[in-house]
Amino acid sequence: MITSSANPRVKQVAQWQAKAGERLRAGVFLAEGFKMYMEAPREWIREVYVSAGALERAGECRDILEKLEGTGYETVSEEVFRKMSDTQTPQGILCVMERPAHTLEELLEGPSPLLLVLEGLQDPGNLGTIFRTGEGAGVAGIILGGGTVDPCNPKAVRATMGSIYRVPFVSAEDLPGAVDRLRQQGIRTYAAHLEGKRYYDSFSFLGGTAFLIGNEGKGLSGELADRAEEYVKIPMEGQVESLNAAVAASLLMYEVHRQRSGKKMV
Amino acid sequence: MITSSANPRVKQVAQWQAKAGERLRAGVFLAEGFKMYMEAPREWIREVYVSAGALERAGECRDILEKLEGTGYETVSEEVFRKMSDTQTPQGILCVMERPAHTLEELLEGPSPLLLVLEGLQDPGNLGTIFRTGEGAGVAGIILGGGTVDPCNPKAVRATMGSIYRVPFVSAEDLPGAVDRLRQQGIRTYAAHLEGKRYYDSFSFLGGTAFLIGNEGKGLSGELADRAEEYVKIPMEGQVESLNAAVAASLLMYEVHRQRSGKKMV
Repeated sequence: MITSSANPRVKQVAQWQAKAGERLRAGVFLAEGFKMYMEAPREWIREVYVSAGALERAGECRDILEKLEGTGYETVSEEVFRKMSDTQTPQGILCVMERPAHTLEELLEGPSPLLLVLEGLQDPGNLGTIFRTGEGAGVAGIILGGGTVDPCNPKAVRATMGSIYRVPFVSAEDLPGAVDRLRQQGIRTYAAHLEGKRYYDSFSFLGGTAFLIGNEGKGLSGELADRAEEYVKIPMEGQVESLNAAVAASLLMYEVHRQRSGKKMV
Repeated sequence: MITSSANPRVKQVAQWQAKAGERLRAGVFLAEGFKMYMEAPREWIREVYVSAGALERAGECRDILEKLEGTGYETVSEEVFRKMSDTQTPQGILCVMERPAHTLEELLEGPSPLLLVLEGLQDPGNLGTIFRTGEGAGVAGIILGGGTVDPCNPKAVRATMGSIYRVPFVSAEDLPGAVDRLRQQGIRTYAAHLEGKRYYDSFSFLGGTAFLIGNEGKGLSGELADRAEEYVKIPMEGQVESLNAAVAASLLMYEVHRQRSGKKMV
């Protein structure tokens, strides 16, 4: 059992919690909590840390014990676990995971893929929620521009509720170039834009579809919005100037899902 | 200019920031930032505090200066403002507002009202986002059960982006009783529920409609869900077990908006 916060592995994990650059360099991310551990793909797991108390609680659950036996784990004291954790009330289990690596090509493999292109999204909770809703709506993948928060940010990972394991994502240094690439593949590109003239439910999203979503405050850059074939608008009553970015993305993705599931309109 | 953090008014505001009970007792809430100040209904404003720096910045904007002249304000030093503020990077303007008081009857006045009933929602960001999207989708009002976070919580107020001023809300001690009341008024009640058999886009929401939304982790209590006439389900692909509460509420409200705006299906 590790009982010292000066332990180099403990210090390394604490550094990965805090620094996106260090995580990227090492090619890892951290996932906390029993749900995140249980849903983690076996082959992604590099290290598992369990607090003494959490191990005792896990003793009552056969599934958890079996997985722990398979992956192996290191026990740490409660105090050390608090140093390693990003949460205020840690569940007492944390894994170091291999960062998934996908290519844009992989995201385009299926028929009529539904994709998201995110530019400059800042809030990790919003990003995680977009992954979660994205899996629910059936996205093929998410393309992240340089200015967007790292989906492997601890808060973002938590907000995905496990979808980080199942929704493929790629980072694109050249986001306008990636959008051009989508268009070349016959994927229709829609900028979520306040200056859109047509409402989101007036388009047909039965073919390959990509939505471009911008920063929470500033929206999409002109450069990226110009690349889109269409501007799409969500109607807003009252004095609302814009919707939360995760809400806007969710409405768009679920409109695609609604159309593709072929329900009749009431 | 107030330059001491020991000033009783400064201490009072700091207490209101931290304690929901104190805010309720005084019948006030706090709103920070220029957008929130500018959108605040004149008659709700009790006190306005502006930091010296913010006042200088505001000097360039005629609209702000005019409103400040009308409402009156107190200048405070930057240090004192930081004590009063709930944010890490304060904009330097804060108002003490009269807490709005509505009755359930007022929420039911219009034809075919769209209402939300929230039970045990814990996250102020989620609640604020629901107000913001609610205004956008055209809700008539929001009914909050006892276990739900106070919409006048500073984080919730911020997340509303001003919708707190425009979306009427009532707190209902007896939430099941309030749902019964809605049914008596001919409003159709739908529980957002994982055990729902029918998808949300298969109902007609043209008449009075109320959605019951539960706690982020646990969903609706059995007692409240039993009161609803229908269970409504949002389809989910992959391994997603539930959606974020604000996302689920947004999808339901905008489905109503979509149906009522009478768009043709593609």
